[in-house]
Amino acid sequence: MTGKQIVVLRLGHRPERDKRITTHVGLTSRAFGAEGLLLASDDEGIADSIEAVAKRWGGDFYVKNNVNWKREIKSWKDNGGKVCHLSMYGVNLSDVESDIKTWDKLMIVVGAEKVPPEIYNLADLNVAVGNQPHSEVASIAVTLDRISDIDTLKQEFKGAELSIVPTSKGKKVIDNKKLGNMDID
Amino acid sequence: MTGKQIVVLRLGHRPERDKRITTHVGLTSRAFGAEGLLLASDDEGIADSIEAVAKRWGGDFYVKNNVNWKREIKSWKDNGGKVCHLSMYGVNLSDVESDIKTWDKLMIVVGAEKVPPEIYNLADLNVAVGNQPHSEVASIAVTLDRISDIDTLKQEFKGAELSIVPTSKGKKVIDNKKLGNMDID
Repeated sequence: MTGKQIVVLRLGHRPERDKRITTHVGLTSRAFGAEGLLLASDDEGIADSIEAVAKRWGGDFYVKNNVNWKREIKSWKDNGGKVCHLSMYGVNLSDVESDIKTWDKLMIVVGAEKVPPEIYNLADLNVAVGNQPHSEVASIAVTLDRISDIDTLKQEFKGAELSIVPTSKGKKVIDNKKLGNMDID
Repeated sequence: MTGKQIVVLRLGHRPERDKRITTHVGLTSRAFGAEGLLLASDDEGIADSIEAVAKRWGGDFYVKNNVNWKREIKSWKDNGGKVCHLSMYGVNLSDVESDIKTWDKLMIVVGAEKVPPEIYNLADLNVAVGNQPHSEVASIAVTLDRISDIDTLKQEFKGAELSIVPTSKGKKVIDNKKLGNMDID
């Protein structure tokens, strides 16, 4: 949808404490143009719940649960894809975003608190979305927003059950199954 | 630091379930140029923990715990500030970011799952960072990144105990108290 093929690989998700952050990682990846999320942990529940939201709001976003992350990276690279690891330690996104923009097939890797050190060598680029501590959710959003060929905030998601009519006050949601408007609140 | 005075007001934080998201909200606000976070809930622990991270990495970011949000908005507006409420329902950021850019004193309001309906009338602008479900963390990051007068990813934070030297592989952290480099991992 962004003119590129983008997937996000989530490392280090801990089912007992990262559910909400990983949900935000998944929904942000979708909203900013990724085609799917690869989850390098076993948490079928979170995968299903992200896919359920995605389905309701349209498009074909998928979550692949419990992937072998090294195998996914290898196969991505073998198929001509590039791998970009986001953290606070790499080269500043501002200095490399024009290079990343030229890549049509991109895997974005984000960790939780710790990542396996090997990732720094496996990635084509280790990118810092600024060298300050903040959030993998923010990192994905700003990276995808900056490198997209289209305006990420104006993407269409086909087959949505629900969609929103932008409005200056309140909430206007269209239920496409009922073909009616719902004013909420 | 961004040439503007920006604060972020966080509504609806529930101490029992929003700790990690609100931490990401706070750190992202700081990293992308806000001067402080106003927390409209009572959670001294989260306020202290965000401030502790902020202090270590430099600058003067503050968290004001347990604010009366209506009073904060009123006083902000009485002092010439503008209020921008981010959600998935408002007008698209892409259509209003050039207006927001002209505002020098800006309060960004983000909720958790539900916000009091009054906020839609109190805000000068109700802005959708796209009309898709994603994350208040992503919304803050992309909004501040788009409206800033400077490159948000190249800000300096004065008086940092720790700082990072951008590097293409691995981690290079400087401990400014010891004036030495630490290569981590």
